[in-house]
Amino acid sequence: MKNPGNNIDIPELARILSGCDICAMTSNTSRGFQLSGRKAIYQVLDDLVAVLFPGCHGRNPIPAEQIRAITEKRLQTSAAALAEQIEYAFRYQCVFEQCKDCGDCALKAAKAVKRLMESLMDVRKILQEDIQAAYEGDPAARSIMEVVMSYPGVQAIMVHRIAHVLYQEHVPLIPRIMSEYSHSQTGIDIHPGAMIGPGFFIDHGTGVVIGETTTIGRRVKLYQGVTLGALSFPKDADGNPIKGIKRHPDVQDDVTIYAGATILGGETVIGTGSEIGGNVWLTHSVPPHSKVYNQQPKPLITNKHS
Amino acid sequence: MKNPGNNIDIPELARILSGCDICAMTSNTSRGFQLSGRKAIYQVLDDLVAVLFPGCHGRNPIPAEQIRAITEKRLQTSAAALAEQIEYAFRYQCVFEQCKDCGDCALKAAKAVKRLMESLMDVRKILQEDIQAAYEGDPAARSIMEVVMSYPGVQAIMVHRIAHVLYQEHVPLIPRIMSEYSHSQTGIDIHPGAMIGPGFFIDHGTGVVIGETTTIGRRVKLYQGVTLGALSFPKDADGNPIKGIKRHPDVQDDVTIYAGATILGGETVIGTGSEIGGNVWLTHSVPPHSKVYNQQPKPLITNKHS
Amino acid sequence: MKNPGNNIDIPELARILSGCDICAMTSNTSRGFQLSGRKAIYQVLDDLVAVLFPGCHGRNPIPAEQIRAITEKRLQTSAAALAEQIEYAFRYQCVFEQCKDCGDCALKAAKAVKRLMESLMDVRKILQEDIQAAYEGDPAARSIMEVVMSYPGVQAIMVHRIAHVLYQEHVPLIPRIMSEYSHSQTGIDIHPGAMIGPGFFIDHGTGVVIGETTTIGRRVKLYQGVTLGALSFPKDADGNPIKGIKRHPDVQDDVTIYAGATILGGETVIGTGSEIGGNVWLTHSVPPHSKVYNQQPKPLITNKHS
Repeated sequence: MKNPGNNIDIPELARILSGCDICAMTSNTSRGFQLSGRKAIYQVLDDLVAVLFPGCHGRNPIPAEQIRAITEKRLQTSAAALAEQIEYAFRYQCVFEQCKDCGDCALKAAKAVKRLMESLMDVRKILQEDIQAAYEGDPAARSIMEVVMSYPGVQAIMVHRIAHVLYQEHVPLIPRIMSEYSHSQTGIDIHPGAMIGPGFFIDHGTGVVIGETTTIGRRVKLYQGVTLGALSFPKDADGNPIKGIKRHPDVQDDVTIYAGATILGGETVIGTGSEIGGNVWLTHSVPPHSKVYNQQPKPLITNKHS
Repeated sequence: MKNPGNNIDIPELARILSGCDICAMTSNTSRGFQLSGRKAIYQVLDDLVAVLFPGCHGRNPIPAEQIRAITEKRLQTSAAALAEQIEYAFRYQCVFEQCKDCGDCALKAAKAVKRLMESLMDVRKILQEDIQAAYEGDPAARSIMEVVMSYPGVQAIMVHRIAHVLYQEHVPLIPRIMSEYSHSQTGIDIHPGAMIGPGFFIDHGTGVVIGETTTIGRRVKLYQGVTLGALSFPKDADGNPIKGIKRHPDVQDDVTIYAGATILGGETVIGTGSEIGGNVWLTHSVPPHSKVYNQQPKPLITNKHS
Repeated sequence: MKNPGNNIDIPELARILSGCDICAMTSNTSRGFQLSGRKAIYQVLDDLVAVLFPGCHGRNPIPAEQIRAITEKRLQTSAAALAEQIEYAFRYQCVFEQCKDCGDCALKAAKAVKRLMESLMDVRKILQEDIQAAYEGDPAARSIMEVVMSYPGVQAIMVHRIAHVLYQEHVPLIPRIMSEYSHSQTGIDIHPGAMIGPGFFIDHGTGVVIGETTTIGRRVKLYQGVTLGALSFPKDADGNPIKGIKRHPDVQDDVTIYAGATILGGETVIGTGSEIGGNVWLTHSVPPHSKVYNQQPKPLITNKHS
């Protein structure tokens, strides 16, 4: 079957598929702006991570004498690409919200990029504390470089700290595309809105969910499958969830939360120094230095042949 | 060490590795047909998603005046590549099942491709309902485009709705390679056989498993870590599980299933409008409008210093 | 905004970012060795998997008459690239541990590569048993090729069996980068140190964690979300976890462990032929042929309108 198109009218199909002007999905192509595809945003993110950790995440080693020139080139490219993408994201959001007078999209984009670039040194300093926490907290870690090059929890917090700067600048779309790219790579779902202190470590990580209005203090450690989520959503008159209110927990300094624990609610506070055991389900606050453990269900053990 | 091959006889190793004619793994190269590698199938899938949501998933923005030409080109390329891959998949399956007279593989492939192409408009219409459900159901969603470009639950259902059309045409291999590609990207494991109604939304998503013979009604919402699975497998005389029987649940319209719930068994029906709480374990049916909640285990709370 | 760099002093930013000589993160560029980025290691791993299963994981089909030449080429390239990367990994680890006289890094790298190359046939033989176990153990599997090309559990064990050979040769960094690459693709986190017998199958897989000092016998089957983990870490005088001691369970032959079960502790032994139910939490040994099940919590079922 050399020509499978023989019995399909592909030009007509293309006409119908591309002519759907009212689709939300095609609005990207039918307005005066042009969002980049999400792969373009992945590229910028990869470049920013490469600037912070030269040589660790790409393909080729970077000779010491070229690092400054390569860093400068990558910063130039990322800043330019990001400014364009953010401007179009602001424009899309303006159209979507039918807002007027929300400001100059290009100017807001330039401000957000400037803010991100200027915060990169601080981002790297905090990440060093995260990396140190991972190295010290995991008996399987053999070196700092192993942590930087392979740990999914470190990958997730790298991306989060970049995306969070853009979230704080009210950039639409882009921070979430960044965090979901990281979610896809690590299984760790951190909303870019979450506020997370230094020395943060997630071990293993798959299945972790950290909601938008979560706050996390210093030196907090999570294991795989932990949820810091919402208890229920207040709804508006139409029955839709109200957006933008505090609905996720506060976790204070030096807390450890073991695998599979679920902590829910915007008024839930986990006091400093607390330890939350595996599979615990918690929807209320606990005071500082609490140890919270499930009486794990005692399993029934029988002999298969008896 | 410039030549590590010095002390390894690589030609001999290549001879042994490539000469293993009886291996299932090398059968792909030693018959009269040539399956493409799985990356070729990923490419076709990416192209089909790009046709449905132009500009959202690739790298470059698509100007409005080029959308029709680009769509037509992508449809042509995808249809041709898919027809070839499906034909070889049918041929492989014929050899594997030692079947005779199961029909003309090229003809069956052409029919499956035609069916998929003709269903693309319907697939996009249903996906619009899925996207709207995600936007309305998540307080963190700021725009429709954010949902389309970043939500893993939306990515998973996009791929599923394409793979399911090929599954219905009894195409071997390809639909499962597509669904596992999506599983790899999203942590959401939907077997291409599952039948899922419109307005379907999975929030966060990592760890969700939806088995082959599951049916799901309209406007159903799942959270991360939900399993719709099998209770046990009837086995044949040799002790192997019997393939092809109903073994996963039916979930009716307007059901919400919270994080970590496990619902098992081919005779289990979740009645319309029901709500299944977090971590619930359910192996029997519940009537419409049920609220099913665990008495969550009350954790022991002590003070670390007491 | 055509030039977003206007108001950002990018050369100065590049100078600061690249001048951070004391950062662990930039040490890669400022020493006499040059680690490759992790993408280079992904490439070698992809090539090794392609050698074991020609045509299944790449893009293009491989004609039977070219398989030997292509295999030889891929082995040459992989061996050379791997030898270089492993040598630099040994050198990095020497610097990191400030060791003296730990041996010739190039020689140790050559030995590790030779060992890996010579074990490839054995690796493939064991993988055939793993693949057969997946095909027989899953009622949804339609062919051996479907298992090879799409099952994440099979992908994870392929990579593990390669990474484990390098771990046994005490290669730093590289095995863990390989296993975390696989974790990222499959949601299955197997530390390269784990010892796993033939006929191993993980169904669905997302969320599985298998710790460094775990041992697993023959014909073991796991489902999604199973943890074989540590109970607690003995700490040294500084309060840091002691590295390198046995802290994960032993699972004997013919054991099945269902979804979400958690088995913890270096002294925990699951006796041959046992069956561990969904969500079971187990921190002590069970004798051979045990059936270990939770009394699943009976959920409260009410009617939403009552």
